[in-house]
Amino acid sequence: MTALLCGSFEDTERDEWLQALRQAAPEVDWVLQPSPQVEVAVVANPPPGLLQGLPRLKLIQSLWAGVDRLLADPTLPAGVPVARMVDPAMSRAMAETALWAVLSLHRGFFAYARQQAQARWQPLPQRRADELHVLVLGLGAMGRAVAQALRAQGYAVTGWRREPGAAAIDDGVQQAHGDEALPRLLAQADVVLNLLPLTPDTHGLVDRRFLAAMRPGASLVNLARGAHVVDEDLLAALDAGQLAHAVLDVFHTEPLPPDHRYWQHPRVTVLPHVAALTDPRSAAQVVAQNLRALAAGLPLQHLVRRERGY
Amino acid sequence: MTALLCGSFEDTERDEWLQALRQAAPEVDWVLQPSPQVEVAVVANPPPGLLQGLPRLKLIQSLWAGVDRLLADPTLPAGVPVARMVDPAMSRAMAETALWAVLSLHRGFFAYARQQAQARWQPLPQRRADELHVLVLGLGAMGRAVAQALRAQGYAVTGWRREPGAAAIDDGVQQAHGDEALPRLLAQADVVLNLLPLTPDTHGLVDRRFLAAMRPGASLVNLARGAHVVDEDLLAALDAGQLAHAVLDVFHTEPLPPDHRYWQHPRVTVLPHVAALTDPRSAAQVVAQNLRALAAGLPLQHLVRRERGY
Repeated sequence: MTALLCGSFEDTERDEWLQALRQAAPEVDWVLQPSPQVEVAVVANPPPGLLQGLPRLKLIQSLWAGVDRLLADPTLPAGVPVARMVDPAMSRAMAETALWAVLSLHRGFFAYARQQAQARWQPLPQRRADELHVLVLGLGAMGRAVAQALRAQGYAVTGWRREPGAAAIDDGVQQAHGDEALPRLLAQADVVLNLLPLTPDTHGLVDRRFLAAMRPGASLVNLARGAHVVDEDLLAALDAGQLAHAVLDVFHTEPLPPDHRYWQHPRVTVLPHVAALTDPRSAAQVVAQNLRALAAGLPLQHLVRRERGY
Repeated sequence: MTALLCGSFEDTERDEWLQALRQAAPEVDWVLQPSPQVEVAVVANPPPGLLQGLPRLKLIQSLWAGVDRLLADPTLPAGVPVARMVDPAMSRAMAETALWAVLSLHRGFFAYARQQAQARWQPLPQRRADELHVLVLGLGAMGRAVAQALRAQGYAVTGWRREPGAAAIDDGVQQAHGDEALPRLLAQADVVLNLLPLTPDTHGLVDRRFLAAMRPGASLVNLARGAHVVDEDLLAALDAGQLAHAVLDVFHTEPLPPDHRYWQHPRVTVLPHVAALTDPRSAAQVVAQNLRALAAGLPLQHLVRRERGY
């Protein structure tokens, strides 16, 4: 089997991936240039158009969890299955970032950092974890891992998803679904943590109405996609004091332009899209499993439903 | 039974304590002024000399976990038992702070905050939790809670204490004891987290020698007492790059003086002694239990061995 690795990598990064993939799937012929032999494309932000004209292509395997950008390429071959990266190591990394953000908000560590800049010594009230309500939007592999990690730490956690059906999560996590349930949940939450996939339905979800429905003084953590958020509306809510803080890992334009207001806003924490980096060591194993399933004619894992967008 | 509540409280804080104590132990006559009837003194940094001349005093119950300042008062009545505050809610709060500090160091969140101040977008390498070695100094109630919380999050945790004997902790936490073991442990740890009691033996423990024994680029988290650390030595180690970062909750002088170098140091995170505030709601229950034990002639809990200093 010939597999093409392609993406917008730096050289060292591409070499690291190639080495990990060769180690995980030594039976595969790994190549870096398109050719008619290619049966699988393992991709990370591939240049648009690159996957056209591969007559034997049977699987497009993303190395990233989010496939919104990949699916937006109109030249993406229509009949070829697309698989997302679902890697337990990545979910753990995401849960670490979510836990750090919630602990920071819960225990006032962003506020203490602002006080430090002014050499100001001022203890703030301390709440118990079970007094803090966290609403996790999105109950995919990462949303579930995050909800469970927060619950294990004692927080009052509710998980929400757009579509009906209960996700397989620890009993201690409340579950809700559907657009109608959202305003009530937003009004209760101290922290709203976004892990939704980016689809036409969730694009711009965090807008003026959404933010106005949040409990005054609550905080937003966006670890999903920048396009979930209407930036002007979020900045207005922060400036008005409706929101206490925003932790943002993702942006409409990445890298975030140097003159963007988020960088200097005292109530915004900017991360450079690092909430959960794909770790080549574990992700290559996930890829290898799917390639073996393909070779054996077994069902493929983590297939994207293109009409749904994730 | 008459119990005296005394300490260096602000008025609202004292009222909150009094209300919580009256609720937890309504059978006790709670007073705010010394009198010959007082059998128990419930104290939080009481003015030196205040506990002299209480003829019926049978127990001094601290509301704080650390009793170094209390024991340093030469007028403290010699024959009266002293009990520390050991409150599971406080241990949980301490574990939250420790987890936040370790997550911040592990995942580069202090570095990202520095980058944000420069509008700099630069992802940093991401390690797995099990690749980070955390050394917890002190295995009392709080050290154990911290070690277990870090272990549950996947970190490679070693707990150390000065005296021999194994603490009752989860098997996943390595244990070591004694001064001889320390240099080897310091050389392995990415994060050294101090939760030792302050005694003549641990005063100034974190000095030039200690810091030089640490792995280059490691970080220090001090959640115990400021006097554990020799400030000039720590600043020198940070300035030389021997240490990557220090998270400090406690200081020789508190509040930390406005002109202290720690406030402005880019590699120091200053917290205003808030790692684990005593929560009157739960701590009052702990006090009530000890008062009932005293009234019933049962063994008292959490007694301090004065010769040991904790």
